Amino acid sequence: MAATRVETDTFGPLDVPADKYWGAQTQRSLTNFPIGTETMPAPLIRALGIVKRAAAEANMDLDNLEPKLGQAIVQAADEVIAGKLDAHFPLVVWQTGSGTQSNMNANEVIANRAIEILGGKLGTKDPVHPNDHCNRSQSSNDTFPTAMHIAAAEEVHRRLIPAMDHLLAALDAKAQAFEGIVKIGRTHLQDATPLTLGQEFSGYAAQMRQGLRRVRAALPALYPLAQGGTAVGTGINAKPGFAETVAQKVAAITGLAFTSADNKFEALAAHDALVEVSGALNTVACSLMKIANDLRLLGSGPRCGLGELKLPENEPGSSIMPGKVNPTQAEAMTMVCAQVMGNHTAITVGGATGHLELNVFKPVMIYNLLQSIRLLADGMTSFTDRCVAGIEADEARIATLLDQSLMLVTALAPEIGYDKAAEVAKNAHKKGLTLLESALELNAVSEERFRAVVRPETMVAPKD
Amino acid sequence: MAATRVETDTFGPLDVPADKYWGAQTQRSLTNFPIGTETMPAPLIRALGIVKRAAAEANMDLDNLEPKLGQAIVQAADEVIAGKLDAHFPLVVWQTGSGTQSNMNANEVIANRAIEILGGKLGTKDPVHPNDHCNRSQSSNDTFPTAMHIAAAEEVHRRLIPAMDHLLAALDAKAQAFEGIVKIGRTHLQDATPLTLGQEFSGYAAQMRQGLRRVRAALPALYPLAQGGTAVGTGINAKPGFAETVAQKVAAITGLAFTSADNKFEALAAHDALVEVSGALNTVACSLMKIANDLRLLGSGPRCGLGELKLPENEPGSSIMPGKVNPTQAEAMTMVCAQVMGNHTAITVGGATGHLELNVFKPVMIYNLLQSIRLLADGMTSFTDRCVAGIEADEARIATLLDQSLMLVTALAPEIGYDKAAEVAKNAHKKGLTLLESALELNAVSEERFRAVVRPETMVAPKD
Amino acid sequence: MAATRVETDTFGPLDVPADKYWGAQTQRSLTNFPIGTETMPAPLIRALGIVKRAAAEANMDLDNLEPKLGQAIVQAADEVIAGKLDAHFPLVVWQTGSGTQSNMNANEVIANRAIEILGGKLGTKDPVHPNDHCNRSQSSNDTFPTAMHIAAAEEVHRRLIPAMDHLLAALDAKAQAFEGIVKIGRTHLQDATPLTLGQEFSGYAAQMRQGLRRVRAALPALYPLAQGGTAVGTGINAKPGFAETVAQKVAAITGLAFTSADNKFEALAAHDALVEVSGALNTVACSLMKIANDLRLLGSGPRCGLGELKLPENEPGSSIMPGKVNPTQAEAMTMVCAQVMGNHTAITVGGATGHLELNVFKPVMIYNLLQSIRLLADGMTSFTDRCVAGIEADEARIATLLDQSLMLVTALAPEIGYDKAAEVAKNAHKKGLTLLESALELNAVSEERFRAVVRPETMVAPKD
Amino acid sequence: MAATRVETDTFGPLDVPADKYWGAQTQRSLTNFPIGTETMPAPLIRALGIVKRAAAEANMDLDNLEPKLGQAIVQAADEVIAGKLDAHFPLVVWQTGSGTQSNMNANEVIANRAIEILGGKLGTKDPVHPNDHCNRSQSSNDTFPTAMHIAAAEEVHRRLIPAMDHLLAALDAKAQAFEGIVKIGRTHLQDATPLTLGQEFSGYAAQMRQGLRRVRAALPALYPLAQGGTAVGTGINAKPGFAETVAQKVAAITGLAFTSADNKFEALAAHDALVEVSGALNTVACSLMKIANDLRLLGSGPRCGLGELKLPENEPGSSIMPGKVNPTQAEAMTMVCAQVMGNHTAITVGGATGHLELNVFKPVMIYNLLQSIRLLADGMTSFTDRCVAGIEADEARIATLLDQSLMLVTALAPEIGYDKAAEVAKNAHKKGLTLLESALELNAVSEERFRAVVRPETMVAPKD
Repeated sequence: MAATRVETDTFGPLDVPADKYWGAQTQRSLTNFPIGTETMPAPLIRALGIVKRAAAEANMDLDNLEPKLGQAIVQAADEVIAGKLDAHFPLVVWQTGSGTQSNMNANEVIANRAIEILGGKLGTKDPVHPNDHCNRSQSSNDTFPTAMHIAAAEEVHRRLIPAMDHLLAALDAKAQAFEGIVKIGRTHLQDATPLTLGQEFSGYAAQMRQGLRRVRAALPALYPLAQGGTAVGTGINAKPGFAETVAQKVAAITGLAFTSADNKFEALAAHDALVEVSGALNTVACSLMKIANDLRLLGSGPRCGLGELKLPENEPGSSIMPGKVNPTQAEAMTMVCAQVMGNHTAITVGGATGHLELNVFKPVMIYNLLQSIRLLADGMTSFTDRCVAGIEADEARIATLLDQSLMLVTALAPEIGYDKAAEVAKNAHKKGLTLLESALELNAVSEERFRAVVRPETMVAPKD
Repeated sequence: MAATRVETDTFGPLDVPADKYWGAQTQRSLTNFPIGTETMPAPLIRALGIVKRAAAEANMDLDNLEPKLGQAIVQAADEVIAGKLDAHFPLVVWQTGSGTQSNMNANEVIANRAIEILGGKLGTKDPVHPNDHCNRSQSSNDTFPTAMHIAAAEEVHRRLIPAMDHLLAALDAKAQAFEGIVKIGRTHLQDATPLTLGQEFSGYAAQMRQGLRRVRAALPALYPLAQGGTAVGTGINAKPGFAETVAQKVAAITGLAFTSADNKFEALAAHDALVEVSGALNTVACSLMKIANDLRLLGSGPRCGLGELKLPENEPGSSIMPGKVNPTQAEAMTMVCAQVMGNHTAITVGGATGHLELNVFKPVMIYNLLQSIRLLADGMTSFTDRCVAGIEADEARIATLLDQSLMLVTALAPEIGYDKAAEVAKNAHKKGLTLLESALELNAVSEERFRAVVRPETMVAPKD
Repeated sequence: MAATRVETDTFGPLDVPADKYWGAQTQRSLTNFPIGTETMPAPLIRALGIVKRAAAEANMDLDNLEPKLGQAIVQAADEVIAGKLDAHFPLVVWQTGSGTQSNMNANEVIANRAIEILGGKLGTKDPVHPNDHCNRSQSSNDTFPTAMHIAAAEEVHRRLIPAMDHLLAALDAKAQAFEGIVKIGRTHLQDATPLTLGQEFSGYAAQMRQGLRRVRAALPALYPLAQGGTAVGTGINAKPGFAETVAQKVAAITGLAFTSADNKFEALAAHDALVEVSGALNTVACSLMKIANDLRLLGSGPRCGLGELKLPENEPGSSIMPGKVNPTQAEAMTMVCAQVMGNHTAITVGGATGHLELNVFKPVMIYNLLQSIRLLADGMTSFTDRCVAGIEADEARIATLLDQSLMLVTALAPEIGYDKAAEVAKNAHKKGLTLLESALELNAVSEERFRAVVRPETMVAPKD
Repeated sequence: MAATRVETDTFGPLDVPADKYWGAQTQRSLTNFPIGTETMPAPLIRALGIVKRAAAEANMDLDNLEPKLGQAIVQAADEVIAGKLDAHFPLVVWQTGSGTQSNMNANEVIANRAIEILGGKLGTKDPVHPNDHCNRSQSSNDTFPTAMHIAAAEEVHRRLIPAMDHLLAALDAKAQAFEGIVKIGRTHLQDATPLTLGQEFSGYAAQMRQGLRRVRAALPALYPLAQGGTAVGTGINAKPGFAETVAQKVAAITGLAFTSADNKFEALAAHDALVEVSGALNTVACSLMKIANDLRLLGSGPRCGLGELKLPENEPGSSIMPGKVNPTQAEAMTMVCAQVMGNHTAITVGGATGHLELNVFKPVMIYNLLQSIRLLADGMTSFTDRCVAGIEADEARIATLLDQSLMLVTALAPEIGYDKAAEVAKNAHKKGLTLLESALELNAVSEERFRAVVRPETMVAPKD
């Protein structure tokens, strides 16, 4: 049986594992919410550390916290920020909807660690009290949403945008590498007029470029911080200037452009900003679903599919079919997209269901948002490195298909009219002729003129 | 300027078009809710007529309504049921969340029409009062959800199930017609072991057969009726027996197995039954998305796609590419599926957001559910008649592809082991050999044995 | 039996109502897609008119269309733009996924009307051919997405933003009008520290202000136009400069900042821009769901609810409960929000499911997006005019509730510590005491000090 | 540096941690899919163990596996089933969409453990080969969906249904305990006619009772197993009877009514059954959202809310507001509901996006489904034990509110007519009178008659 110590809160005393810094409220939450296995995401724990450090610094700046205590809090918070105390944050997502218990978890861990630093005894709340000092000038109601914004913004900056840049660069490189390869286009999955393989990839790159714009455009929604609103947005029990000072501290710690939210009532009661960011991720997921689907279509085969692309072969594909290789990175990517779309629904429902001064779907919203960011970032990085970057064109196959297409007839339409051109194509299709054979059979155009006009390589751009 | 007459409600008098039967509350709703263009669906109006007739009959049976008035109400309600008075139901979906205004619309139209039948003067509420007589023993809170159940059940029975039966029969017929055609299978969109085209279609048929089971399994959720719960579920102002009598009347009018809901509080305050039915439709939409997507994949080409199926050509496919034909029925079908999935989200949000004794997302829920039913039914009928029924196999193309496949090697695995078989396939792929050439080159098996084992037609079933 | 004339397309001749301008392809679509009742939205028809006019003008500018024909096309297109020919656009949403049939509908109507203008005979395609002239330099594949962007951008500008401005102004006005009314705050729906009613409304206004930012930020995604990409994005059969010239013409006609899309492949194959805009609408729906829910909570009663707000009474609320008045505008608003969330799912599924050179969920995507815009705009306007603008505070009720609250104890915490303050509150709650009585009973603070500190009006802002 | 051994697959040799049983394909997946942190859920790993055991037993029964090897496989599989080898299943959800790598993980772990049991050397594939023996007669394509069905069905049986029964019993008990407490009803959140608190809870119980019916009705969709379909559904490389025998074995191991799927093509290519089950969970989530929301509404206060219920106080509710207690179990429950709705979208997207012979969204679908089941089950259990079971009625508060209500006027309507009754209510509301005072002032009814009719306790049921 593990050693314990006694911790107390306003509900009374409670046994807590002796080797853990957390206190009574954390322990109570562990007991009261035996729901699932999903603990608060690490970036959110880190962000709570950032908030606690910034708040302590701001309180010291405003002569509202004894420096000795404040510095110990800062030191302890730094350990939270660095991830050294992750084992002391055991709470699950499915707790109170304000995240109060995770805020208290941070308060309790930092208080006990600061007590330890100052030579005190764990559990005594002396000389550092989790509420009166670690949570000074704060409420869970402003602390937790502040941490949500910090965590999301950091993850977007550190993970998502680099991964998107990485994929975009790979797509741009392919667009350039493939710019000379003319191939059949397909609309409605049916043969259409030609384009270059580079043009096809340029479309994917354009989607990703727009995706970056979308994500960057949503980021500013995350910079305004709720901190300073305290219990209901009024700032009760905080000093004038606290909100702004905290925001500056957070900006300094993270290097990101955080500010104090103009309206703290909105910042506690609604998390439209998270819905907005999730909307951007949902759009990126749509883009990636399209791109990954296209790549597996174009890479289908090796002998009975479209077969225009050769995707990298990374591992055996089948437990029963020897030698089979599958577009597994595209599959992982599209599964991630499905998850992001689902998470977006969860975030939307949570975002729509706040009441009065507080939205109490905070943990489920940030859990889903951070999962979406992480999965998209990891998924895109792997997809880039193990699929996109290694794609090769099967030029022989591409040329074969292009030669067979009936839709090259489109180039004749300005010359012989839509209706006649349609007749040529239909006749070829019906009789299994080439376009030229059909055109000549129908006296639609001279062979010379046909050869001058029906040249795929001239059909990939407007012309006079 | 159109002629008007004066109608009154508890808010006062109001001008109403002289040629319309509706009264003051309908007119007030028209003024107060100038939102969108979506009027209450016709099946719901019909269902309100059914409720009003059933209630009048039940009240007469219980000696709670003067027969002269009751019979006039029944006659007027019959005209609503028959759709003759549809022009008198102008209200939009985006009104009060209880559907009260549409219930009053029915009360007012039926009252005025009954007054007319009895020789009275429109707008006088004499001898038939919209509330005191047409709405007797009723509240909007039980009437509207009763009408929702009636409308949904009728539409499922009349439209959806016949359309599903129709599609299922067509798929079964194709499964049978194609049972002798051996073709390449594709997993991960990559070449796999063979199956028959009939087997492929049998999978679609199995999806639709399960879909029918799903829809039928959800139907009983719609039979229990809220009627008799009146304002909050207690049945205030209704007589004992009214609830059961109304349910019997509705069952008699519709020929469907309606009953009185066991718990009227649930029947007013929650519409989980609609969420459940929508869940069944959402599953059917997933099935149809898969089937329609497969058909356009297999029908892709005509020369640069998989090309195994020839889909019926129904209309010119392109305004610029002459002779192009597209899988347009599959596209309409999949667009319907996207809509049904979206509607399911709307219904879910509405279903989750009731408060205390009343869910006030009734109109948006039934609007979406009836749209889903209608679109699925119409979409499947058109998809069946103009696509599935006319599909032909391109047997030459199918045979060509099958011959080329490397995954026939799977049949060798039990003989030579997975690892050796993989070597044969990879060697063939790398060097562009046939499987036989590769197997012989690697001394994996004798030619005789190869020819005995690698026979696609024997690979489409288990064997000893 | 109505008179008909014969029209032809590449599939052959067909009877068309004599009094309609449409041709064979429109008629064929009417026959082939008897699915649902949802016709293409009016703003999309208008936008097709704009495209056709702009294309004719651009072709004339580039010496690619005989001015006599071009001018007749412009004149006919202007009639489409003005809505005069709406009756000639009968096609439903559930057609080909490229919108080809609606593009042909526009081509056919404009061609026949132009023929008429030029004194020709309907159905002859002479001197104006629907494909060769009206659709010159165009494909449905670039025309329809161009029209989608135009329609969405116009509707956002004309309907949505004005409605949002209108609601925002009303919320700002209430925030100002109510700034002196101190009331109890509620977090977790439980009593919390006070704020002013004006602050509460300022949160709603902040949500709407951010919503406007979100919608405006998404608008530029709609300005780049696909036109000039023609069949697959390459611009085949269009002249150099056509794309840019069309965009300028569209900008001139609409007064909006349309440009030619940088990448036409993306513009045909993906509609991420619509998913993005829908994401903004989805966020606005979350805001409105919160605001409308809050108003009905605060207005609940009149005697057994929170009762802090008096909402305007617009109509009788119950068919059974005399004198009942309900928050019907809030209900219509929240039903609209549920619909917008559902539409967002439909748009997401459609946006994710494009293949290769073409997304074929175009009609379902634009149908849902335009419905969302329209419903949000109409809903907000009605909600503003018939609910928000007329809200009054029940100051007596607000004062009564404020006086009773135990959470005023929070102001004591900095003075006597969190734990002691909690004891005071709990003691009061348990024994039914006032906070002062409890504080004195527990010797927590002097009465004088209590009265100095526990003053709600000083709790609505930070203080030193 | 940890010790390693060499393992090989058809791609070549690879270092694997010496203390782990997994082989080369698992290791390759670890390297190739560094995406997120979500590993395959434990119930799915257990289910893979069940499949491997059942397949070995079936192969032995059919004389298709040497008993010595088969028994070792069975013993190793039993350790997987018991969870003893969980540490040897490190793969994430975001891998190949067929789950092939997790199937191979099971094959490799069981092969090596069986080798160990038989005294062989890990990594030699001798005498037990992961593909040739552990995977004999199987493909990932039938194994993984079989495991999905087993895992989902077991979790529904073991976790979900007991939790629902538990909550239902608690709700039924409250319905009974509260049956004598007459209270005000609320529709549109506005005061309405009375009901008993027991009736209110009976509505919740009815929702949960229906929820159980829904979940039970969906269960049979999970019983048909894909096993025996092997690579594409044909059963290639399996013996006749294998499919049926495996299903019997699985039924014997689990005690659940598993059967062999009628159509194996559907069973590999579509997972509509999972979409169906998720639809049932989504409906249950709607029910729970309603119930939990109602409880926090009715428990709002303690002094400034509705205050009719006293919810159990489980922990301190606020880090800043001393003494505050919040409905945290209701919040955890509603957050779970939001998650389940989101998961349903992910499952729907995955279910709709299969291609040809294989759906490759298997891992994301089962991950979401198992999370939904687990969270609902845990959430309901906690919600029952820590909230519902301990709810008490505040009878004094309930009586006070009831007395004040104006909607008791409804009882007068049958007597004095709807319009007059409305006048009485409106007059009382306007002048702040009691209903009786208003009725007398307006000479609507005698005091004696009023007192006879307006008796809340008689308004909670129909009456003659």
